[in-house]
Amino acid sequence: MSGLRVAVVGATGAVGREMWRLLEASPLPVSSAVAYASPRSAGTELSFRGAPVAVRALDETSFQPVDLVLASAGAGPSREWSPRFAGAGAVVIDNSSAFRSTHPLVVPEVNPGALDADAAIFANPNCSTIQMVVALAPLHREWGLAAVRAATYQSVSGAGARALDELVRSTRRALDGDDEEPAVFPHPIAFNVIPHIGTFADSGETTEEIKMRQETRKILDLPGLPVSAVCVRVPVLRGHSEAVWASFERAPDPARARVLLAEAGIRVEDDPARARYPLPREAAGLEDVFVGRVRRDPSDPVGLVLWVVADNLLKGAATNAVQIALALAARGRLAQGAGA
Amino acid sequence: MSGLRVAVVGATGAVGREMWRLLEASPLPVSSAVAYASPRSAGTELSFRGAPVAVRALDETSFQPVDLVLASAGAGPSREWSPRFAGAGAVVIDNSSAFRSTHPLVVPEVNPGALDADAAIFANPNCSTIQMVVALAPLHREWGLAAVRAATYQSVSGAGARALDELVRSTRRALDGDDEEPAVFPHPIAFNVIPHIGTFADSGETTEEIKMRQETRKILDLPGLPVSAVCVRVPVLRGHSEAVWASFERAPDPARARVLLAEAGIRVEDDPARARYPLPREAAGLEDVFVGRVRRDPSDPVGLVLWVVADNLLKGAATNAVQIALALAARGRLAQGAGA
Repeated sequence: MSGLRVAVVGATGAVGREMWRLLEASPLPVSSAVAYASPRSAGTELSFRGAPVAVRALDETSFQPVDLVLASAGAGPSREWSPRFAGAGAVVIDNSSAFRSTHPLVVPEVNPGALDADAAIFANPNCSTIQMVVALAPLHREWGLAAVRAATYQSVSGAGARALDELVRSTRRALDGDDEEPAVFPHPIAFNVIPHIGTFADSGETTEEIKMRQETRKILDLPGLPVSAVCVRVPVLRGHSEAVWASFERAPDPARARVLLAEAGIRVEDDPARARYPLPREAAGLEDVFVGRVRRDPSDPVGLVLWVVADNLLKGAATNAVQIALALAARGRLAQGAGA
Repeated sequence: MSGLRVAVVGATGAVGREMWRLLEASPLPVSSAVAYASPRSAGTELSFRGAPVAVRALDETSFQPVDLVLASAGAGPSREWSPRFAGAGAVVIDNSSAFRSTHPLVVPEVNPGALDADAAIFANPNCSTIQMVVALAPLHREWGLAAVRAATYQSVSGAGARALDELVRSTRRALDGDDEEPAVFPHPIAFNVIPHIGTFADSGETTEEIKMRQETRKILDLPGLPVSAVCVRVPVLRGHSEAVWASFERAPDPARARVLLAEAGIRVEDDPARARYPLPREAAGLEDVFVGRVRRDPSDPVGLVLWVVADNLLKGAATNAVQIALALAARGRLAQGAGA
């Protein structure tokens, strides 16, 4: 193989930076790397395996055919450009919500079969969904998942690099007794929690809460699964946490659940007597999904309660996207012009 | 009435300070006010309705009979001193967990009948429980509560004044790239969330999660009610938030629920299209319980989902205690020697 021409769309964003870094560190053979970003970030410079790469605005002039695209620039740009790249021969792994309902939606260790689809665009799921289905899949295989309720504690980095800046800046100002008007969030995020991620549907749910249901159903191939989420932004920089109530067809066992989770590659941190359970600040920067506080649901004889944490920019986004790329490469699906 | 002799035990703590302030502002006739605190705080001075009051350590020497005690110094001191005050003629409203299972446990607007008990000690419920039962009670009366699941987002002030200092100090240091060893919390709380409040039972639940079940059952007089909670500390100074899934015997209706909540005196803030829903920073310093994001539970045909917020130091503690005192006064239960 002569090496892949790769591009990252949104390369200077919170997720795109991680995609770039993980691609660089991956075993994929890369002959050229292209960094696309918004016009605001164009002109800055990145490096890829030692070579300088100028960041370009993505437009008719700069567009060029490549073999692999990792896209994380939002649903609008994705709708416009991901099909263009695919049409010009690329395999596109798209982190936006644009293709999740229509294209293969993949968490490689959960539904690898979706990688065999005859598709040029693969959708990367929502961050909160990825870590939850990673934790639920091995339990579902054992006991049959019947219903899920989840309350999330989502870090600001899920809203992008500007959101990180807003939390840091507004926290400093709040400590000085001074408030500023929020720009990224609908309310001040410093020392606050905000039960509003995405936009509201008529049902009273947010788009984030709806994604958690629709994407969980699709990835686990359980189209009627009851899933009810409450998604909340918390003043954490990086790392999403989730309180998950899972109900099964057959009575689960917490000790056996811990074994199944560990066997599935999940980092089980569950020693409450020593105050060991997953924490977002400890998960930040790591590529695993962490589960702890596994216990019987005292309100449900066939229920378990779990605490699930992962770095939303890594397994919740960039890591999962690169894992899709590697899995496609292992299937011989990544090569010059393979996506055409 | 010649006026009540009142005492606040733990008067310099996060809750005690609010009890003192609310007693001072209350319509209760007070002839003398005594402030007890730990030896560390003894010697400082408060004022009550214009008169200076020296803070005293509570011991055999300083103990004196009074008519009304509001106690918030933890279960240990409460077990020692609350029965002493009661034995010397006082009515004691105790904010610790010491008497919650054995004595009347009261949220005046929810179970006022408990105020008629022949008791000298009345227990103030756990902060997370109070705001949840205030929201659930009017819905229970209409549709019959069948099960409750709750995930909490609890502010640090629930852990006392030192916890407030720890959040502020450790946040400043984290912003400067420097971590400090936590003293109050088991892990750093700055830009983190910690699923650990209280201590762990063998079941894997925390004492806080167990309290939410046991106290909810007792206050609502539903001894078998399934209640499953996940209690999480978040980097918020003041104000607890809760995602609550409530299942009923009869199918509830969100619009009717909002009317019932408002009629019960709850502040319903529920206009998602305008980004209106309760927030802990907006509830801080206010005595109400706030509910918003009322909607059908998409996973349960007889379920509702609610977002419940209150100031944990006020309605979650001091306000409820003073409301108990006022309700007892209205029943003629507070007078010199009435508790004897």
